[in-house]
Amino acid sequence: MNIRFYNARILKLEKARSFSLQRGELWVKGNRIAYIGDARDIDARTVLWDREMDAEGNVLMPGFKNAHTHTAMTFLRSYADDLPLQEWLHEKVFPKEALLTQEDVYHLCRLGILEYLTSGITANFDMYFAPLPGARASVDCGFRTVFTSGLNDFCQSLSEVEELYDQIRGMSDLTDFYMGFHAEYTTSLHLMEGVAALAAKTKSPVWLHNSETASEVEACRKRWGKTPTELTEALGMYAYGGGGYHCVCFSDHDFEIFRNRGLTAVTNPASNLKLASGIAPVHRFLTEGISVAIGTDGPASNNCLDMFREMFLVSALAKVREGDASCVPAEEALYMATAGGAKAMGLTDCDCLEQGKLADLILIDVKQPNMQPENDFVKNLVYSGSKSNVLLTMVNGKILYEKQRFFIGTEPEEVYHMANAIIGRMRK
Amino acid sequence: MNIRFYNARILKLEKARSFSLQRGELWVKGNRIAYIGDARDIDARTVLWDREMDAEGNVLMPGFKNAHTHTAMTFLRSYADDLPLQEWLHEKVFPKEALLTQEDVYHLCRLGILEYLTSGITANFDMYFAPLPGARASVDCGFRTVFTSGLNDFCQSLSEVEELYDQIRGMSDLTDFYMGFHAEYTTSLHLMEGVAALAAKTKSPVWLHNSETASEVEACRKRWGKTPTELTEALGMYAYGGGGYHCVCFSDHDFEIFRNRGLTAVTNPASNLKLASGIAPVHRFLTEGISVAIGTDGPASNNCLDMFREMFLVSALAKVREGDASCVPAEEALYMATAGGAKAMGLTDCDCLEQGKLADLILIDVKQPNMQPENDFVKNLVYSGSKSNVLLTMVNGKILYEKQRFFIGTEPEEVYHMANAIIGRMRK
Repeated sequence: MNIRFYNARILKLEKARSFSLQRGELWVKGNRIAYIGDARDIDARTVLWDREMDAEGNVLMPGFKNAHTHTAMTFLRSYADDLPLQEWLHEKVFPKEALLTQEDVYHLCRLGILEYLTSGITANFDMYFAPLPGARASVDCGFRTVFTSGLNDFCQSLSEVEELYDQIRGMSDLTDFYMGFHAEYTTSLHLMEGVAALAAKTKSPVWLHNSETASEVEACRKRWGKTPTELTEALGMYAYGGGGYHCVCFSDHDFEIFRNRGLTAVTNPASNLKLASGIAPVHRFLTEGISVAIGTDGPASNNCLDMFREMFLVSALAKVREGDASCVPAEEALYMATAGGAKAMGLTDCDCLEQGKLADLILIDVKQPNMQPENDFVKNLVYSGSKSNVLLTMVNGKILYEKQRFFIGTEPEEVYHMANAIIGRMRK
Repeated sequence: MNIRFYNARILKLEKARSFSLQRGELWVKGNRIAYIGDARDIDARTVLWDREMDAEGNVLMPGFKNAHTHTAMTFLRSYADDLPLQEWLHEKVFPKEALLTQEDVYHLCRLGILEYLTSGITANFDMYFAPLPGARASVDCGFRTVFTSGLNDFCQSLSEVEELYDQIRGMSDLTDFYMGFHAEYTTSLHLMEGVAALAAKTKSPVWLHNSETASEVEACRKRWGKTPTELTEALGMYAYGGGGYHCVCFSDHDFEIFRNRGLTAVTNPASNLKLASGIAPVHRFLTEGISVAIGTDGPASNNCLDMFREMFLVSALAKVREGDASCVPAEEALYMATAGGAKAMGLTDCDCLEQGKLADLILIDVKQPNMQPENDFVKNLVYSGSKSNVLLTMVNGKILYEKQRFFIGTEPEEVYHMANAIIGRMRK
């Protein structure tokens, strides 16, 4: 498809933490951005367009990258909230997950993808015990997903992980797979050593839930005399990079390891609040020069797959944590939600809007009251923006969502029906 | 207008903190709810309907009450973010406010009202130095607003407040006025005593910014040997009730005064984060039996006038503050955002959906991915709901917003144009 956007304002990444708006056109040819610039510089009549769209002064920007989630957990949304963490996990989440079929995971991932599209999310970084049906869902919908192994003592084996690595990487340009494991507290030493070996063999980064709660870190220290970061570093996990999800409770030495290894901390602010885990030290990550990305976490804990809420929280929680209203400004949060996430997920080919990059982009409606007046687009976006401002979401050159309609090869009502049938079956 | 909603699910307040969904019809005649019940119980053909609307199984519920805001500050949205509090207030907010005309305030309030409608907010509790043009804006739009005096050493006088009380109460059924003053730190003793006298004379509750920051409380203790709550209690402010906005830093004695006087704490979670003020003790307010309502605060500090974000924050911040994922459940937050706000604002005639109550209601679209599957409507609404789910907003029996279109007597583009003209003029 060749698509021409005109009368647009295009959000350009000037350098890390700085953005500008450029008036003009953006052309998509196939799955890539073919041109960004002034209407006068190049003649649109030379191209046979499938679609020419008047952006009416609205803003084209890179899609958000949801850098940590468990998409299939949509079925547990609003099923077990307002409970203590251990009761939530052991009495509610685990017993229901044991009832899931591979087909269930496929449908539940499609529901999550629908929600990502409404929030302008164009790629997700997904950890789940059954990634294959999730990968099929992404490919069928035309959505981009990087998976990481959710290996632990109760699911997957090292040989299965190696097989998944080949299967999912080979499935499509839209899917990728990194090494990983669930967390130190669910994974025996033998498996962690195996992940390190697989990472070395495949030259893969390694990802895990890391230091989400104080009690997790304390228990790890008791077992190993090390924090989860120190332990995984000692096991030689990070020869090819990677990082941690959550990263709420970090020691000085943990910061040092992340900085020296060039690892990324993925922060999950809404989930960390709702499960009473804490507020991550995002300001310190930035001052130490450590990359930060943003994830929604899964819908069982958050419960919303919405990058607008997360961006606001990343900035606002840092301010209250540090007692300083000036720290982690809007531009930092926007950078994390776009280019920061892309870096974590190995998607630097769609981290910003530039000629030649993959066309993973969204169109933001500024003609709604929450985006007016136009004092500052980035601050409007991060502090008062909402999924209601997402006019269009394009992944890999294809429009998958536009004006509240979905183009993923199936009707949303069908997906809702399947999700409700799954929870209905489980209730019996 | 006579409007019939059928095929609806109607959110009923069973008792405080408990809701249920009832399938059936809701009829609006004039500005009141005329009937809620089963289609079979009563014959719809006996009524001459102006409109009959198939709700398609979506949920009718009471509109949200925004219990603390400064609506006209829309012009400062995204103008001065990411700054230390004092610099923000003294170098950015105050100098720009000094340039406002009464006509500006009118247009800026209309912009805020547009935004309220998109978020399902049907009434606001507004404090601003120029309430009259704000009241005109509400009446012209058909929106419901309760004003409170923003008296302080720099604006308004006691005689002006008394005049405003009569003018705004007499203006329309949609407007009301309570006694109040800005805050202890901006208001001299003479004026505070005058407010207490006016409250006694008019039998009005009294409202003020109370204990928003630790430094405010400390300075008040230094000046008076009392907290702001103790001082205002000692001045005899609360003979007819009222309460405080923010209420972040409370002493044991402050809780006791609020409990004994039956005062309401209005919490403003997003604003308190963004200005690094802290997290209010909402869990303790509830355990002490103190009423809580929710406000967005003004768009200069929040920056978003969105009750969905606030409801999530009230619950999620309480969980992280107390280290307990079970405290302040979704139902509590929803109660605060509807009936709790109505109680604070003296709007008990539109606090819930019941026959005879004022028709201030909204229709929530559950057929969007963030509201699926349907494990629990209230938890879906509070934890993953969004303004994108608001299909329709009705105030006083009139539809002011439906499917992203506004019916307030003017086009939104005109309002955006005026707001941008105001900030453009100020830049010169």
